[in-house]
Formats: sequence, C-alpha cells, structure tokens
Amino acid sequence: MLTVNAIAAPSATGALVRTKIERRDVGPRDVLIEIRYAGICHSDIHTVRGEWGEVPYPLTVGHEIVGQVTEVGAEVTKHAVGDRVGVGCMVNSCRECDNCKAGLENYCLNGNTGTYAAKDRDGTITQGGYATHVVVDEDFVLRVPENIPVEAAAPLLCAGITLYSPLARWNAGPGKKVAIVGMGGLGHMGVKIAAAMGAEVTVLSQTLSKQEDGLRFGAQHYYATSDPATFEQLANSFDLIVNTVSAELDINAYLSLLRLDGTLVNVGAPPQPLPIQVFTLFGNRRSFAGSSIGGIAETQEMLDFCAERGIAPEIEVIDADAVNDAYERVLKSDVRYRFVIDVDSLR
Amino acid sequence: MLTVNAIAAPSATGALVRTKIERRDVGPRDVLIEIRYAGICHSDIHTVRGEWGEVPYPLTVGHEIVGQVTEVGAEVTKHAVGDRVGVGCMVNSCRECDNCKAGLENYCLNGNTGTYAAKDRDGTITQGGYATHVVVDEDFVLRVPENIPVEAAAPLLCAGITLYSPLARWNAGPGKKVAIVGMGGLGHMGVKIAAAMGAEVTVLSQTLSKQEDGLRFGAQHYYATSDPATFEQLANSFDLIVNTVSAELDINAYLSLLRLDGTLVNVGAPPQPLPIQVFTLFGNRRSFAGSSIGGIAETQEMLDFCAERGIAPEIEVIDADAVNDAYERVLKSDVRYRFVIDVDSLR
Repeated sequence: MLTVNAIAAPSATGALVRTKIERRDVGPRDVLIEIRYAGICHSDIHTVRGEWGEVPYPLTVGHEIVGQVTEVGAEVTKHAVGDRVGVGCMVNSCRECDNCKAGLENYCLNGNTGTYAAKDRDGTITQGGYATHVVVDEDFVLRVPENIPVEAAAPLLCAGITLYSPLARWNAGPGKKVAIVGMGGLGHMGVKIAAAMGAEVTVLSQTLSKQEDGLRFGAQHYYATSDPATFEQLANSFDLIVNTVSAELDINAYLSLLRLDGTLVNVGAPPQPLPIQVFTLFGNRRSFAGSSIGGIAETQEMLDFCAERGIAPEIEVIDADAVNDAYERVLKSDVRYRFVIDVDSLR
Repeated sequence: MLTVNAIAAPSATGALVRTKIERRDVGPRDVLIEIRYAGICHSDIHTVRGEWGEVPYPLTVGHEIVGQVTEVGAEVTKHAVGDRVGVGCMVNSCRECDNCKAGLENYCLNGNTGTYAAKDRDGTITQGGYATHVVVDEDFVLRVPENIPVEAAAPLLCAGITLYSPLARWNAGPGKKVAIVGMGGLGHMGVKIAAAMGAEVTVLSQTLSKQEDGLRFGAQHYYATSDPATFEQLANSFDLIVNTVSAELDINAYLSLLRLDGTLVNVGAPPQPLPIQVFTLFGNRRSFAGSSIGGIAETQEMLDFCAERGIAPEIEVIDADAVNDAYERVLKSDVRYRFVIDVDSLR
C-alpha cells in the first residue's frame, strides 16, 4: 500500500482539504503513475457536492490525469517507466460484454469502473487524480504524445474525448455543418476538434463575449442564442449539433436548427428530462442522441489526432490550494477555458 | 370543374355525411383518377375532430387512395389511361428546396401540400380520397403493381410507407434486431416489412392478444409491455425500435431496450412532448428520432418491394355509410388491421 498526498472533499458542503490517501500495491498488470497535472471538470464539482447521487466521503476527485510512469507490474507490456501517460474517466470495465469487446468500455453493459467514487474489484472506493500518484491497470492508461504540452494534455482525457467521440461518430468533416452549443471547457475543445476535422463550425453561445476566441479556435460563425433572430436565421442548417450545456435550454428550438437527417447530441447531462416535441423530430427526420466520453482505443486516437494537428485546450494552471476558488469560478463560467492543478504543489 | 360524390365531416363533432365536392379541371400535368378504394387512417380522425389544429369544414379526408387513371393532361408522361395508381399523403411540394431535390418531398422545407385540409397553389383547400374521383399532379401519383390486391393496396400509401421509410433509413435487415411497438394499422405493416427485409422482428404490444397474428406476419418474438419483466428481459437488445403508438407511454423504458448505437424512431405523433432522460441516451449512445411518411420515389420503391415480396396489409372492407362506425372502432383499436372504404358504394 502506498500513502500519497491528495486533496479531498470531506462532505457535500465542506471545502476540499489536503489529506493523504492510499493507493493499492502495483499488481502484475498495473502501472504506477506520478501525476504532474490534473484537470478540473464540472463533473468533479457535481460529484463532490452530491448532485449526482450519494458520495462516499471523504472523496478525492479528478479524471483528467497526466503524469509519468514510475513503476510497472511484471506483466505490463503497454507502458514503461518514464513514459508520459494519462488516465481519463475510467480505470476498468468488465471486458466481456459486447460493448467492451467492441472497444467501447465507456458503454460497458456491466458498468465500467469510474476513476473516482466507484467500487473497485477489491471492494475499495476509487479515488481520483487530485493526488501525487495513482495505480491503474495498464489497459486503461493512455500514451500522451510528447508534442502536446504536458499541462495542457490533462483536459483532453475528459473534455477532449467527450467532444471527439460524437464528432467522429456522426462524421464531422469536410462538407458538414457542425454547431457547438456552449463555449466552456467542453465547447472550446469541440470547436478546435471539429475545425481540425474539416467541418464548417458555428458556435452557439449565450452572448458574443467569447466570439474572438471562438473564431481563433477555428469557428467560422458565432451566434448569440440570447438573440431570437439566431434561431430564425439558422433554421434547418446543421448536420450535427453538439450540446455541451447541462443547464436547461429550449431543446426544441435547437433541434429545429438541424437539416435533413441531422442529429443533436447531448454531452451535457441535465438532471431533468428534456421535453422533446416529436413533431420537431418529424421535420427533417431529426435525431436526438447522447454520447458519453469514449472508449480507450478512441481516446488514444484522439490524443494522437490532437498531437498531429497541434490541438490543445486553453488552460489556467493553479496550485492545489486554489481548488476551492477555482470551483467557484467554474460555477460562474469564469474560466478560459479549463483549470489544471499543478500537482507539484501537493508534494 | 368536376363535381363528384364524397363523404365529408361537417364539423369537429358531427358525423361524416354524403356530399358532393369539386375537383379542378385536368391540367396539362394532371391525372384524373377514378378512386376504387380509400383506407381509413387514424390521422383522418385526428384531423376531422380538430385535434391537430384548425380545420376548414366541411372537409373530405382520406390519404390512402387507389384507383385507375381515366384521363391525363396533354403533358403527362408518367401515367396513362387505364393504369392502376395510388395517391398518398401529399399531392404537391415546392420542388425547389434541398429536401425536394433530394427526393424527400415529405420533408419539403416550404411545406408540402397535404392530400386534404391543405392550401393548394390555386388557393383552394385540398379534399381527400373518401370520394369517387381525384385530380392530382402526375409527379405525386404512384404506380400500383397489379399483383397487389387492389383493395389491400390503399393502406400502403400511408401505413406502408410510414413504416418502410424508417426501416430502410435505419437499415433493418439481416443481423439486425428490430422491435415494432404497437400492433395496429401501422405496426402490423412494420412487422411484415421488417421481416421481409430480413430483420429479426419482435413485437412489443400491450397484451398478447394479437400474438398469433404477429408471428404469422413474420415476427419471431412477441412480448406484452404490460408485464414489467419484459423491460428487464429485453434491456440493451435492439438495433432499432419503431414506435407506432401515439398514446403516452414510458418512452425512457423503451429507450433502455436499445443496444449500442440503437435508435428509437417515433412514427406515432403524440401531441405532448416526451420527457427524454439524457442519462438514458448516454447508455449505449442511443438516439431518439422521428420519421414522417416517405418521399415519392421511396413510396414507389415500397410498392414495388411489397409487390415483389407478396406483402399486403390485412384489411376490412366497408361501405361508405359505415365510416362513422369504423371511426369508433379505430378509436377502440377494434380493427384487424385497417379499414378500407369500397368507393363503389359512393357512386
């Protein structure tokens, strides 16, 4: 057992505090990672505040993890000491169901093992990446190419794959008109990736306050959704809309922007059901879909794609002690565009 | 102008009565059809009762029309006197929008012209097929192959294409597991067509009362949705579910039956929005879609497919004077499986 420095939430309402947590011994197929950077995802906040169900406190969150391998188990073949690696939202899955066999462990029919707050095989509760080290099965460890700046690589493991997967699945590319709803941590990655895939990208954001950034990241058009004229002007326009917003919005108004056979994919997770008008779906034979992160092979593909195209998230690096302030700023959308914890500040 | 016998609804609450209606003169690109049979679609009832918006009474409904050509305009090339033909839910469209150009006039962006209750180009209101004759632009007239029994052909023009189109679009075929929700006029055609396409077909019906029929029509499995065990047993099973039911049902329970990348397509049109849980869509990367009849070319393809495979709806032929009783029976689901009016009874 390895005792390591971490930050943990003591309760749904208490501030995150410095603590020590335990990592399992490195098993034959495990990799020990010295964590360098950990991204802050909105899901971390939902989780620690108990908004997504009961939480086993104290809990260390964080599922955008980058570091280097410092030890490997006897049977490990995929990674070696010194490798730059990453870990995303899952650390295991059943490996036997149809979806796992298809390489989509994110849709494991027996439920994959989340990087934090999940019951691990040995009965312990998984603890996330706001910590100096983590031990992970080699199959759930990704190679992080050297030409992605190490601190910027972390958010790719959740925000990056969350957008890459639906963009790839629904064929964003040349000739396709793609809209990204929301210009936060997820949305800004969607703009960069969809543009790199060759699609014509439009940002739909509440206001035009981030327009300059959006165009710089590769969008060709930028509209304010607070202006009702936007919805008239863009009716029947898009092949694909990726909605990154978890807050309630008029989903049928967004669906009406889809052209023939278009799909609106939600990657944001509103807790309330969305009232879908079937008559809106009848027009243009529209679809409404959901997409949740991506499989391990696809996550590796995304990392390689980003390295090749020089894509990285826009980040603000903070010390561990600034996490509570950062949470407040995330809730106010006051971050451009992702906080990343410098884990050296925990050593 | 041609004055012809018909049945019309005088108001939202009044019984349908015999009347006379006028058809336009046969224009250069028009076809005059002597109607032989007209199917009764649930949409007819929704429309005449004012459930789908304001109605220009008196109104003759009916959009499942089969008969023979008795006159053609000077420029008509697609049909000739004596041909057996059909007319479905639309009699015109803009022909200029992207969707019309793609052959999907059913999704005309300027709104296609419905076979009844729609404003025609000349400002008159279109009147449907519960009548002895109709005049229709040749481009919206279908060829009805001789080996489909003439009386059974009528429901193919709406019920048939409404099911054929989504089954074709979402690739029902060998190796695919398809569920049809509801075993009424639409559903029983879905079973026959999906089975003929080579899919493994399951019927999801409230009870097992029509099980024998369902298996005879080509289904391999039949489940009662009133039994909660059905939903446990069939979780994560289907590639495609076509929901023909307009009444409210627990849509998220049905969505949970989809396997990886599965789609639930609504062809039924509930007036209220459906509360879709995004977390249900996250599982298996599911989609919820809508589909509305089909394009003209696709409708011809469907008729040829049905002729080739010997597929026809199960019908009950009635005289015109039995229409009001038939409506009551449709509302009680007391029809196996589609009423067809023998229009000779109107002559």
